Amino acid sequence: MEEECRPMLNTGLRGVVIADTRISDVQGAAGKLIYRGYLIQDLANTASFEEVAYLLLFEKLPDAAELKTFKAQLAAERDIPPEVIAALKTRPKDALVMDVLQAGVSLLANHDPDVTDQTQEAAVRMAIRLIAKFPTLLAAWDRIRNDKDPLSSSPNLDHAANFLYMLKGEAPDEEEGHFMDTCLVLHAEHTINASTFAAMVSGSTLAMPSYVIAAAIGTLAGPLHGGANEHVIQMLQEIGKPENARAWLNRKLAAKEVIWGMGHREYKVKDPRATLLQKLLKELAASQGSVSPLFETAMALEEACEEHLAPKGVYPNVDFYSGILYREMGIPPDQFTSMFAIARTVGWVAQWLEQSESPTKIGRPRQIYAGPTERDYKPVSERG
Amino acid sequence: MEEECRPMLNTGLRGVVIADTRISDVQGAAGKLIYRGYLIQDLANTASFEEVAYLLLFEKLPDAAELKTFKAQLAAERDIPPEVIAALKTRPKDALVMDVLQAGVSLLANHDPDVTDQTQEAAVRMAIRLIAKFPTLLAAWDRIRNDKDPLSSSPNLDHAANFLYMLKGEAPDEEEGHFMDTCLVLHAEHTINASTFAAMVSGSTLAMPSYVIAAAIGTLAGPLHGGANEHVIQMLQEIGKPENARAWLNRKLAAKEVIWGMGHREYKVKDPRATLLQKLLKELAASQGSVSPLFETAMALEEACEEHLAPKGVYPNVDFYSGILYREMGIPPDQFTSMFAIARTVGWVAQWLEQSESPTKIGRPRQIYAGPTERDYKPVSERG
Repeated sequence: MEEECRPMLNTGLRGVVIADTRISDVQGAAGKLIYRGYLIQDLANTASFEEVAYLLLFEKLPDAAELKTFKAQLAAERDIPPEVIAALKTRPKDALVMDVLQAGVSLLANHDPDVTDQTQEAAVRMAIRLIAKFPTLLAAWDRIRNDKDPLSSSPNLDHAANFLYMLKGEAPDEEEGHFMDTCLVLHAEHTINASTFAAMVSGSTLAMPSYVIAAAIGTLAGPLHGGANEHVIQMLQEIGKPENARAWLNRKLAAKEVIWGMGHREYKVKDPRATLLQKLLKELAASQGSVSPLFETAMALEEACEEHLAPKGVYPNVDFYSGILYREMGIPPDQFTSMFAIARTVGWVAQWLEQSESPTKIGRPRQIYAGPTERDYKPVSERG
Repeated sequence: MEEECRPMLNTGLRGVVIADTRISDVQGAAGKLIYRGYLIQDLANTASFEEVAYLLLFEKLPDAAELKTFKAQLAAERDIPPEVIAALKTRPKDALVMDVLQAGVSLLANHDPDVTDQTQEAAVRMAIRLIAKFPTLLAAWDRIRNDKDPLSSSPNLDHAANFLYMLKGEAPDEEEGHFMDTCLVLHAEHTINASTFAAMVSGSTLAMPSYVIAAAIGTLAGPLHGGANEHVIQMLQEIGKPENARAWLNRKLAAKEVIWGMGHREYKVKDPRATLLQKLLKELAASQGSVSPLFETAMALEEACEEHLAPKGVYPNVDFYSGILYREMGIPPDQFTSMFAIARTVGWVAQWLEQSESPTKIGRPRQIYAGPTERDYKPVSERG
């Protein structure tokens, strides 16, 4: 291509439109997150994870019969092959959870009956199996690394409650099941962030869903993407108690250091998911009759932030309260990012499905070569 | 963001410049491929894979001492942990090779001593270990699926020859080692294709090299990206003999069907790598005293294509002759794409390294929401 002047460098691809989507929308100024037309508040308060997964995958909320069929389909696909359990047992106990999860996706694909069927229908079946099996994989790994036997799934429990059962060995009460369900709903989809984008680039080559999801997991594992809620917990522990929040914040702001869980590229007001998670934590405090110290500290920090950060459009994001809630549910901190992954798999699959529906060009932006011009090769003996 | 008119949709990101690079350049009209200023012809004819890997990673050809150190470093890191062998042994024998390779990268990371060290130095060590261990992983899997014991690496053999030794159980002769070495050099880097781009998106979140390389492998596995050379072999087998090439081609062109291994998005003349591979096949024929039937058929097909396709800028690409050469070296056809992967890992790492040197924004292009506007949520009992 001949050009008179070089095109502008756009490393972050800011403003470049790579797709029209019917899946989700973030209205950052209004603080709205919408899944296929429904406000996240409405879905979080009333719809189950299975309903939301169906909505994201198939563009409509299921009716009663469709929901029953879909739930049965997911429940029937939950268990993972004994050979995958055997592979997990070869892993060092201190392996990174996201690393094991990424390996697990490829290992599961080795056993998928549709792995060599290149039709779209086969790929959809494979993707739904991954959604069903992810929590099992994660729970199995957590039990194996703690010298416990992995559990079979419980067909009578919903997706979220069954995960807690397989992780902890006892079924959660209704409130805890609801909290986990809501967390999964809140994290299921969020337009085109880096992990979703990686999935789309990978999927543009017609790679099968396991390849695409493994690419997304590896991207989510990056410290600039997933993992902020783990940092929030460390930050709140460092602050220690609510009374310290203001002074701690002032020191951090003066040193221009990061305040974890605050601010979001898209939202210029409080992230609606943060509001919903905070509400769940309040419900939990009410039913427990006491507020967890970390939650108290977090609310004090949010209040302290209001003065300095809110005027700049910096408010709590989804990570600010999610780690506290996971911790209350007994999820180990090094599994927080994989909790994100088991929820977001639905969004990755939905985006991959939407992309698969129309013939897509392979994502190939440009680099401009700025290296040495042609130079002569000298054999090693003649190099200085 | 308020906009008066919607920005243009650019699904393929065509023309968008996301990076300046000093790594490689494709000059499609001139048929030139350049690695850091050196013509691919010069490198393929005289430089070893290790020299080229050093050049791509560290921006200069090594002097004798640097090359010796780098070769020793790679050789020392070749072997893979017994726990990874144990995990591979849990895999079904018919598992897809690229799927096993993708899992293997994550499994290797579980044992990497630098996995929790987030410095750039640690990440570079991890990346170099992956380059060193990849051929071992692939050879081990091929032996395991064929009920043979994996072999330890041979420290006296170079990267390419050692791979053939670990795969086949005997060291290659000098000519065969040279052919494999050249194949690795030719596939080591090729600017920003889909797998490299997936690696860059993943790497933009500061994900560690194993996450990034696993994302790239999943992308390379897509049928629109890797795998064309496997199709070329099937195509040549279907043609059967050189005399059939012209009539076969005419039928395919009339039916507007794909001719595998012909044409390239970037090259408008013959891909310089195809020219080099063809030369190797001629050398092989000379030393064997006979031309392989597939190679004869391929050359007849290239000749037939010249009349109809060359005027449109469609010439043989790297995949047209590579499968034939791999086949002559005894590489199973379902490993062709993973041969691409073990070579290209160097390019992926080089691109990841270059990207890591400057603070990068997370790759986040836009989607435009074109789904339902806000709608009211109805509980499942009220849905029609």
